[in-house]
This record gives sequence, C-alpha cells and structure tokens, in this order.
Amino acid sequence: MSQYRVLIDANDEKGLVHKVSSIFYSYDLNILSNSEFVDKESNKFFMRSVVDGDVDKNELIKALDDVLPQTSSIRVIEPKKKNIILMVTKELHALGDILIRHEAGELDANILAVISNYDKLESLVTKFDIPYITISHEGLERAEHESKIIETINKFEELDYIVLAKYMRILTPRFVEEYDGKIINIHHSFLPAFIGANPYKQAYDRGVKIIGATAHFVNNNLDEGPIIAQDVKHIDHAYSWRDMQKLGRDVEKVVLSRALKLALEDRIFVYANRTVIF
Amino acid sequence: MSQYRVLIDANDEKGLVHKVSSIFYSYDLNILSNSEFVDKESNKFFMRSVVDGDVDKNELIKALDDVLPQTSSIRVIEPKKKNIILMVTKELHALGDILIRHEAGELDANILAVISNYDKLESLVTKFDIPYITISHEGLERAEHESKIIETINKFEELDYIVLAKYMRILTPRFVEEYDGKIINIHHSFLPAFIGANPYKQAYDRGVKIIGATAHFVNNNLDEGPIIAQDVKHIDHAYSWRDMQKLGRDVEKVVLSRALKLALEDRIFVYANRTVIF
Amino acid sequence: MSQYRVLIDANDEKGLVHKVSSIFYSYDLNILSNSEFVDKESNKFFMRSVVDGDVDKNELIKALDDVLPQTSSIRVIEPKKKNIILMVTKELHALGDILIRHEAGELDANILAVISNYDKLESLVTKFDIPYITISHEGLERAEHESKIIETINKFEELDYIVLAKYMRILTPRFVEEYDGKIINIHHSFLPAFIGANPYKQAYDRGVKIIGATAHFVNNNLDEGPIIAQDVKHIDHAYSWRDMQKLGRDVEKVVLSRALKLALEDRIFVYANRTVIF
Amino acid sequence: MSQYRVLIDANDEKGLVHKVSSIFYSYDLNILSNSEFVDKESNKFFMRSVVDGDVDKNELIKALDDVLPQTSSIRVIEPKKKNIILMVTKELHALGDILIRHEAGELDANILAVISNYDKLESLVTKFDIPYITISHEGLERAEHESKIIETINKFEELDYIVLAKYMRILTPRFVEEYDGKIINIHHSFLPAFIGANPYKQAYDRGVKIIGATAHFVNNNLDEGPIIAQDVKHIDHAYSWRDMQKLGRDVEKVVLSRALKLALEDRIFVYANRTVIF
Repeated sequence: MSQYRVLIDANDEKGLVHKVSSIFYSYDLNILSNSEFVDKESNKFFMRSVVDGDVDKNELIKALDDVLPQTSSIRVIEPKKKNIILMVTKELHALGDILIRHEAGELDANILAVISNYDKLESLVTKFDIPYITISHEGLERAEHESKIIETINKFEELDYIVLAKYMRILTPRFVEEYDGKIINIHHSFLPAFIGANPYKQAYDRGVKIIGATAHFVNNNLDEGPIIAQDVKHIDHAYSWRDMQKLGRDVEKVVLSRALKLALEDRIFVYANRTVIF
Repeated sequence: MSQYRVLIDANDEKGLVHKVSSIFYSYDLNILSNSEFVDKESNKFFMRSVVDGDVDKNELIKALDDVLPQTSSIRVIEPKKKNIILMVTKELHALGDILIRHEAGELDANILAVISNYDKLESLVTKFDIPYITISHEGLERAEHESKIIETINKFEELDYIVLAKYMRILTPRFVEEYDGKIINIHHSFLPAFIGANPYKQAYDRGVKIIGATAHFVNNNLDEGPIIAQDVKHIDHAYSWRDMQKLGRDVEKVVLSRALKLALEDRIFVYANRTVIF
Repeated sequence: MSQYRVLIDANDEKGLVHKVSSIFYSYDLNILSNSEFVDKESNKFFMRSVVDGDVDKNELIKALDDVLPQTSSIRVIEPKKKNIILMVTKELHALGDILIRHEAGELDANILAVISNYDKLESLVTKFDIPYITISHEGLERAEHESKIIETINKFEELDYIVLAKYMRILTPRFVEEYDGKIINIHHSFLPAFIGANPYKQAYDRGVKIIGATAHFVNNNLDEGPIIAQDVKHIDHAYSWRDMQKLGRDVEKVVLSRALKLALEDRIFVYANRTVIF
Repeated sequence: MSQYRVLIDANDEKGLVHKVSSIFYSYDLNILSNSEFVDKESNKFFMRSVVDGDVDKNELIKALDDVLPQTSSIRVIEPKKKNIILMVTKELHALGDILIRHEAGELDANILAVISNYDKLESLVTKFDIPYITISHEGLERAEHESKIIETINKFEELDYIVLAKYMRILTPRFVEEYDGKIINIHHSFLPAFIGANPYKQAYDRGVKIIGATAHFVNNNLDEGPIIAQDVKHIDHAYSWRDMQKLGRDVEKVVLSRALKLALEDRIFVYANRTVIF
C-alpha cells in the first residue's frame, strides 16, 4: 500500500475530473482528499488528490498522462521529509520558530543547514545539532558572496526548499534562477504595501492602523513573487515603528512557518504570479 | 441550457466522485465548480457541483440515483430567488443590513414579509415596500402567540427560510418543528459561550477580551443548533457591556447576512449538529 | 451642568497633565474619561478629556489657555449633533449602512443631504426623508462640476463633515482646500497598497491573500490623507476580483461608519499625516 | 536618575489625576507614559504612569500615600528582570516560544527553572542552560505531588510568576493559594467556551467555525480566573479536532507569550475577576 499526492494542472476542458477519477477507480485507489479549482480568467484547471492503494507510481503517472491533455502537468509525489536550507542574518524569531516546530516534529523536513552572513545565531542553531555555516559578505562583491553560498548549498544533495527566515540581503537574478521556484521568503509587510527596506518605518510614516507580513516565493522582482500566505495585526497611534517591528515578529514567524508547511505538504500551485493552495 | 446546483451526501465509499463525474460527462455537462469533503469520523461524503448543460432535471436526478448508494441524498436545484420571511423584535441593525443588501440586489431572495411582536420597525420596513405584520404577544400565552405567527406565515406559499434577525423570544418546539431546518438565527455571542439572555452582560462579567456573534440553524435546544458562521471583534477593559453590545451589532449583522447568503446559494449541508459549507 | 470634550495638543513639556488637571480640579469638574499620548518622535502631546460640571465654556478655554504653552491648540466642544453631507456615485452599501445607523439613532449627526453625480440612489435616500441632490458631471469640465457641488454644499450652514461614501470621482485641490480636514473617504483597499482605480482588480492581479479597506481624511495627494481606520478579510485563490469586490463591501461599510463615528465623537487628532485616536 | 512604573488603584473621586500629577510635578518627574481608566460600574480608578527623575522610591510612595484616599493601592516599581518558573507537561510549542523569546532578549525575565511531571522536554530546555526538574506524579497522591513541587519552587528566592505553558494537571486550592495572583495559564479554548478537558474535541463536536486560546491568571475555579489575553483563528468543516489542535498551538503560544510580556511590564490590574491592561 502506498500513499500519493497527485497534483495536476491543465488547460480546462470538459471531463477532466471524470478522467482522473476514472483512473483512480480503475486502480482501486482510495481518495483520502480531493480538491479542484478552475480559474475562469485563465481557463486553468487545478486538482490535488491524496490517494492510497496498490499501484506503482510510474504506472499511475503514465495512466494519467494517457487520458489528460498533452499540455497538462502531472506530479505524483510520495510523502516524505523534504530537504530544506535556512538562510538568516541576525534576527532569531523566524528561525527560532522553525527550529522549535522542527524539534516538535511538526515539520516534515530535514534541515540540512542554516547559512548566514553573520555568526550571531550560531550558538542557537548548534544547540539543535544543525550545521551553521557563516559566509561573511564583508569585503566581497555581491556576486562573489553569492557564489560562495551557491557552492555551499550545492554540496547538499536533493535540496527541496531554501527558506529565507529574515535573510536581509537582496538576492541577484543569478541566485534566484539557480533555485527557481524553491526559495520562500518572509517579507515584513503586507505586500504590496511597503516594498523594500524597513517596511515598519515606512508603515509608521504612513500612519497605518494595521501591520502585516507576507510569505512568498522569490522571483527576480524584489518582493513581487507569488504570495503564499499573509496575516495582519491591528495597531494604534501609540506604536512607534520599533513597537510595530516587535509586534510584527509574531506575524512574520507564524506566516513563514505556515507557508513552509504548505510547501512541505505539496499544497501549492504557482501560475501567473499567483498561488492556488489546497 | 440550464444551470443546476447538485448536492449529494452519502455514506463514503470508493468511486463516488468517479460515478458522479461520469454522469456529468455522459450528459455533456460543464462543471462550473466542484467541491467534495469526506468526514472521516462519520464516514460521510459531501459533494456540491454547479453544472450547466442541456439536460432535464428529473433525468439527471434519476441518473445519479441509479449509480449512487441507496442511502444517498441527492438534490438538484435550479438557481432562483428563494422566499424568506424575517422575524424581528425592536432592533434594526440586522434587519436593516438585510433590507439594504436586498435593495442592492445582493440577495437572491424575495422578502415575503417582516413579522414582529412590536410595531417599532414598521416605518422602516414599509419604506422598502415590504409587508410588515405586527403580532403582539401581549396578553397571549406563548402557544397562542406562536399559533398566530404560524397561521400568518403559512398563508405565504413556498417558504424557503425564516430569518430571525434579532427576534428576542424563545421559540417552542412546535414552532421549530413546523419549520425544521428552515430557521436561521443570529445569536449575539461566540457560541457556545454565553448561551441565553444578555450575552454581552455575561461576557462583560466574565471579563473577556473578544466578543463574537454566531449564525446558526435553530433546533430545539436553545442556541445549540448547527453553526453556519461566526466572527469576532477584539475589545479591552474600557468597554462597558453596552459598548460591547454596540460593537457587537457590527459583527451580528455581517455574520447573519453571510449565513443567509450561504443558505440562498445552497452551500450548506447539515449533519450531526454540524455544517459543511462549500 | 454642562458636558465638554476638551481636546488639547501641544509641544510636550513637563507638567502638562498637572496643569490641565489642576484647572479641572479648580472648577470642580468631574472627569468622565481621560486619555493622553506623547509622540516622542515629534515631541507632541495630545490629551482628550470628557468632563462635566458647572462652568462656562469660554471661561474654561481661557483658564486652559492661561496655563498652557502658547503654541497649544485647545478645543472645548459641547456634544451635539454634527451636520454632515454624504457624497455617492452608484453603489449603495456604504450609503445604506450610514442611513440605517442614522435611522437607528447610532450616529450623532444630521444628514443635511446626499449629493451624487447620478440619480441612481435617489429612491433609496428619499425613503428616509433626506434630500437627494443629483449634480450630473455630464458635459461639464471637472472644475465646473465641482463649482456646482460647492455652491450646493455651501447653501447649508455649519457643515461639519463631508463623507465620501463611495464617491468615485477624483476631487480637485480646490475642492479639498474648500473643506480642508472635513472630508472623510473610504478607499476600497488596504492603503497604501493599491492606490487609484479598481484596487480589487489590482489586488487580484497581485494574488493577495487578504483584502482590506481604509477610511481616511482627504488631502491633495490621491488616497494619501491621514488614515482613520482600516480592516481586512482573508481570501483565497477561489476569489475572482468581483468576489473580492463583493466581500470588500462588508469591510468598506463597517470601516467607513467606524471612522465617521470617531469623527462625530471628536476622538481624532491629525498631525503629520497621521491620526491619534482616543 | 531612576525610572519607575507607578500603579495606582483607588475608589474613584474627583481630583485623583490632579493629585497624582501634582506629586509628579513637585518632584520634577518626567512622565514617559500615562494611562487612566475609571470603571463606572464599580467606581474604581486605575492609573499607570511611567516616570523618570531624581527621587527616592520610598519618598515617592509616601508622597502619593499622603494625598490619595486611604483605601488606595499604590505600587512604585523599578523596571528589572522578573524571576519566573515555567511548568510544562509534554507539549513544547508554548515552552519553545518562551525559550526562543528569552534567547532573543524579548522577555524581561530570568527563567529560574522549568518543572515538569515528565522528562520529555528536558533535552530541549537544557540546550538553553536552564535547569529542568522532573517531578513525576506517578504513584503519588495529588497533594503529595504538589508538595514536592512547592518545596522545589520555594527553594528559589523572589519568584514573580509561575507560567503554566501547557501544564496539563489541575492544581489544588492549596497550590493556587500559595502563589496567589502569580500563576498565568494558557487554556486552549476561547473561554468561557469549552472549560475543562480536551476543548478542541469539544469544539469539534459543537461544530464551531472559530477556535481560540485564552491566557488567564489562575484562581480556584477551573479555567475561571481573570482573563489577560485572547485570540482566535477561523476554521472550516475540513478541520478534524486534531487539525484544530495543531492550528490552535499557533494561537496558544502567541497568546501566552503576550500575556507574560504584559505581566513582566507591570501592565495588568486585576479586580472583580477582570483585568485592566494599559
């Protein structure tokens, strides 16, 4: 008996659910959960099913491939721990939240390493028997610094996700391309408001009554990748921007961890700079 | 071309999605939206599909009935305005919200009448050319009073829902039975906290930091019917119970109207004192 | 016995609370509520007290003026109904919410008139015995159209606030200047995200997971005036921009009405494009 | 130069703010922040000021005592790290959140020890160089078990707060009395709904659409002490009670940590089973 997560996206047409469910039925698979969505604007069909039964993975892919339109994307995934690398700078709230969840067995992931441009969080991370690798940016061109990081990352095999848990340096297109669709970032504002540096200061200056945080995949436009999760907190005039920053940490860490869990459970489809999440 | 909302609940077994989607496919129906849920605890399967195409309603029901387990419930509904009656006492915020939404064309409903035990809201309701019927409870036994209300309601044909928009009298089992599954109430607390009278006073006395409202179907246990929608607002120590009541109105009206819309769109399944909402 | 709302803002210095409270004490005034805030960044002091007792308003102002720094602003306000004018275009949810609250006696205001560039909402407004004035913009230059509106507004005496309850035309600097600090707008997004036209479409395109609304005073930078109130709702991928718009209406109307109540109760200080709200 | 937090509660009467601010003024103290509240129902006055200046603490207390009504409570507190003990059973999310905040320097506290009836969390806690003391309840009467805990706690000097970070055993009146007003608990429901065991199961059975968590001081009525902080999350029918429990952890830990910070900053007044929080 195996369990599979089946993720399909396709151009919408009549009968897709029928075709997929017929395959499941013909292999005598049990559907544990099933979600579909059709985006009318783009005419795209999305489906995520969790099934169990006695079938070979490749045979299942082939069977689905035979009935679905040629342009469809079909993923059949066996649930198992994914390999992740965390990148941080100096703040420990988002990192700490992931470490504690990992320790609690909440995250279906192996943390291969934590990489930082400072050694500040080393003592925390090594408490958890996770390798901490400091790659200082001092005296290095941005490209050089990133080359060293890429080299370090690529020593690990089968990387699934890089999580920027408050990594405060802008990534170059080259880095983003190298790990396309694999980098999850937490931005400390309610995007698209307050793109860029010190969003809490920006938010303070604008006099907002709510602050937020946004977890998103990284692409080559700063803070403009597909959004995975967002949340907010109400504030009032008595909050200085440092108070906003403190309160904001509680939102940031919860939103980033939620996004990471969605990714680890293969619940996210990305298209047209948007996400469909089941 | 007709559009149908197809609502199925059944004991779960392998192949249900396959069977239903095969029927849709065989009639060349277009699936506009589709949601399923299996409650593992009770082994119940729920499915709501919106389809359009060229098929007779009764033929579709028969086709589904032929393939689905005998114990299944199958509803095929043509979208059209539902007939509702509102019952109120003296407060106008929840009533007013429904009247304005109705005026705005947001509600797929005909308001047949507003019934109250006071005439206080008559001038508001008649502005909107909706019949207002005062049935005073003064000098009447509860059973007598309700008999008069039932008699009044039953003069209208094809009633779909009774909405208690702050009707502040407890209904007898007889009344509830008469309109079983058709009565939607707004309770001015976050149920199951503060069942019964003056929940804001109760909430004040308990010193809560959040207040809420709950829309639910009415059954014969006071405030214990299946919950449709809930929402909350944060408060602090400076709120007297009257302040809580004022703020609470904003939650009550939004929650009741949301529940009503879900009912009008045939999105609610009820089972085991719970709701499944697609 | 009179009741006064005393609003003071001043450059902060030692002893301000002492000085004000000494005046209250010397006149044997009862403090019903009292709030202070010091903005450290700008060194500004804000205080709002509600007092009752037997003192002449001008005498109280003079006494406060004698002890407070010269640059202080002192307002002593007797609670009474404020005069407001509503401006709308074609949508009735925000307008309707205000009309219903007004009908319920929730708003301490006289609605002098509703002004619109369309006659669409006339039948609703006149139900409530409130004058509805259509001033079409068709065939008129923007300046001409606004002149006619200003002329109409200025026929009413003692206007306190103009509420833009989904008035969908951009106001010129001249109009804004004419009613400086008196115009409250509802913007249908979580500002400063999605400034300008069709924010729900913008939000959809950006793939956000939360939508919001912002009530603010209007100044001469589009959607950039001081924020009074904001709120949000969570959404998911299944929301088209029209669904977002529908859900957004529930946020818009609640946020605008909340901002209006804060203004009617003299709870808002404005400084440096920010608000302090007690 | 010293900084003090001055907390006063008194029966309300005219001139209290005047009297207190006169004392501050006479000692040339700078008011950094100031909050007052009068509970009209109980006629109680609450005031919290943060002041700095050059005055001896006892002299300031005496000066305030001289002018305030005899029944007043006056506390003048120098900000410093408070001493806390954490009690846990087997779950690490709430504990972990406190440990990480402590590590980040967010909490103005010394964690003297973590006490548990199981050794399960020992390896986590000792990573942070904090003593972990297992006091098994096996084979012991409740009174005996608690005696051993009390004995252990009382070896530490100057305890300020005991934080029950998911300590899953009911405390006896004797224990509660021993640390009266010093015990903060997190209850995994939106109190007063779902008092007692397994609130998520209770919430599931009731079919709620929102779950919550409540931090409160412990008194001798189970889950009925004064509430400090509450928060909620929306859920839908797809949540099993175990899913609710998982999501609930994110609320629990944030709410407990918030309550702890309020206590550490001396922001909480307790009266009549309610809290006033500045």
